[in-house]
Amino acid sequence: MPRRLRVAGAQMGPTQRADTRTHTLNRMIALLEHSAAQGAELVVFPELALTTFFPRWWIAEDDTEFLGNFERAMPNPAVQPLFDRARALGVGFYLGYAELTPAGKRYNTAVTVGPDGAILGKYRKVHLPGSTDFRPGQQYQQLEKRYFEYGDLGFPAFRGPASWNAPVLGMLICNDRRWPEGWRVLGLQGVELMLIGYNSAAYDPNGGTAEDAALRTFHSTLVAQANAYMNATWAVTVAKAGVEDGSGLIGGSCIVDPNGIVVAQAKTLADEVILADVDFDACRQGKEKMFNFAAHRRPRWYGPIVEQTGAVAPD
Amino acid sequence: MPRRLRVAGAQMGPTQRADTRTHTLNRMIALLEHSAAQGAELVVFPELALTTFFPRWWIAEDDTEFLGNFERAMPNPAVQPLFDRARALGVGFYLGYAELTPAGKRYNTAVTVGPDGAILGKYRKVHLPGSTDFRPGQQYQQLEKRYFEYGDLGFPAFRGPASWNAPVLGMLICNDRRWPEGWRVLGLQGVELMLIGYNSAAYDPNGGTAEDAALRTFHSTLVAQANAYMNATWAVTVAKAGVEDGSGLIGGSCIVDPNGIVVAQAKTLADEVILADVDFDACRQGKEKMFNFAAHRRPRWYGPIVEQTGAVAPD
Repeated sequence: MPRRLRVAGAQMGPTQRADTRTHTLNRMIALLEHSAAQGAELVVFPELALTTFFPRWWIAEDDTEFLGNFERAMPNPAVQPLFDRARALGVGFYLGYAELTPAGKRYNTAVTVGPDGAILGKYRKVHLPGSTDFRPGQQYQQLEKRYFEYGDLGFPAFRGPASWNAPVLGMLICNDRRWPEGWRVLGLQGVELMLIGYNSAAYDPNGGTAEDAALRTFHSTLVAQANAYMNATWAVTVAKAGVEDGSGLIGGSCIVDPNGIVVAQAKTLADEVILADVDFDACRQGKEKMFNFAAHRRPRWYGPIVEQTGAVAPD
Repeated sequence: MPRRLRVAGAQMGPTQRADTRTHTLNRMIALLEHSAAQGAELVVFPELALTTFFPRWWIAEDDTEFLGNFERAMPNPAVQPLFDRARALGVGFYLGYAELTPAGKRYNTAVTVGPDGAILGKYRKVHLPGSTDFRPGQQYQQLEKRYFEYGDLGFPAFRGPASWNAPVLGMLICNDRRWPEGWRVLGLQGVELMLIGYNSAAYDPNGGTAEDAALRTFHSTLVAQANAYMNATWAVTVAKAGVEDGSGLIGGSCIVDPNGIVVAQAKTLADEVILADVDFDACRQGKEKMFNFAAHRRPRWYGPIVEQTGAVAPD
């Protein structure tokens, strides 16, 4: 019996700071319905899918607008219509959102929801980019290190339901996808499908010119391809794209197979669904041969990866 | 002052089992001279550059032919002409070879030699592919795990000389390039230029059809690109290519910049020199921002990479 799952990436165009939650949720429900109409059983939404990418703004942390970006429970009344529609359609989804815990901790979080509406897995972003402090003179900030705590759940893999052929699933969020360590910890749990949402600047919104949108999209696709290949897994990476709050975000959402080949990729910077029939057995060639970890890995020599944080050059 | 070095990859066409050492060394000297004539200051040769890829053959380990593939010292009289010519030209080089130690241990080894003929660094391949035992019914074997011990030197980075602008250099060998762990241990030493030789099968010489030459070349290039980007380093990967002993090897030797962009790539499966002007300062953007390890790595969550060898899937 082939172990297949039809998976959609629901790329979203920009969500402006002034957009209402209802407006955004209705767009997401439309993407969900469009995906389901094409047979998708699992739909991947971006990182921080419910709001603008608010870490670009310096806002007081007790400001009502700031706190309005956070979910105090998942689901909650404001997102319940998405959960209800997905359950009615029998479709699962990955959702990135800003989490505020009862203890007052904030995380950049994602959940994967099964076709029955139950939460299958939860992940809190480990690799927070940006800065803790306000950068004077810059119109646009990147304050993830200020607004969120580092994820405290590690990189937990989990199984999808039997109706999905029980794949081993893993989640990452945005910048995590550039760090092979997270992929490898999930690879060591036999991951067969990686779900990843992102918001990645298309250029330096403050005027730097070191990297343009084409180069940044290339980087985004490259790391999905290579890390999928090196862990013999499928990967779905999904952007929030386009000009948001006056700052550009790359698109390039893609679905990559265990050979690192892009099998679907978004063509726009707007709301757009990409689709692929994921065959989990296509992971076996890599997992049993080239990337048979038990046969070929040599952890004895990997110590610095955990013993050391920053780089130390030889004299 | 720009920190630049002109680097060549000296791809080699096949070396047949019957070829003499003199014949092979003369080809290498010709490649060295051709590189130097174009201003190259460092020339990268393939893995096991002095011989055919003999692990494809089942040979008794006390057989004269088998032992003839190994170097008992480096340099030694049989390779001295290469060392002498390089020193006369003021060119350094990376050389892959089979090493037999005085204690009788065998390794798949590479050295990097400076422009003055001194050995700057030595590496023994950590990620040996293939099998320990003869595979019955297969004309072609892959017996690296039988013929070599696992490398016991870790992944040591080292500095090139002042005349090269003192870059941090690292070496890997063939299959190592598919394992992000080795790259990262070198990245944690601030590597600016990775030197990598390989011999990679273009297809299954015993008739399997899971992967063809185009896919295998794609994989080889992909892992160089992504691992160079994720460690903000240049990389030179150099093949022995073409039909050797009746079995195909991919080419695709390439030079990749710290953005993961291929700046030079071999077009043939024969002796061919590729060249690039490597600007070590181009590593700074990545090392200081996106891949500022001290700022962004989270080793607390990387434990399984060293605590676990094989994959263990969730229930």
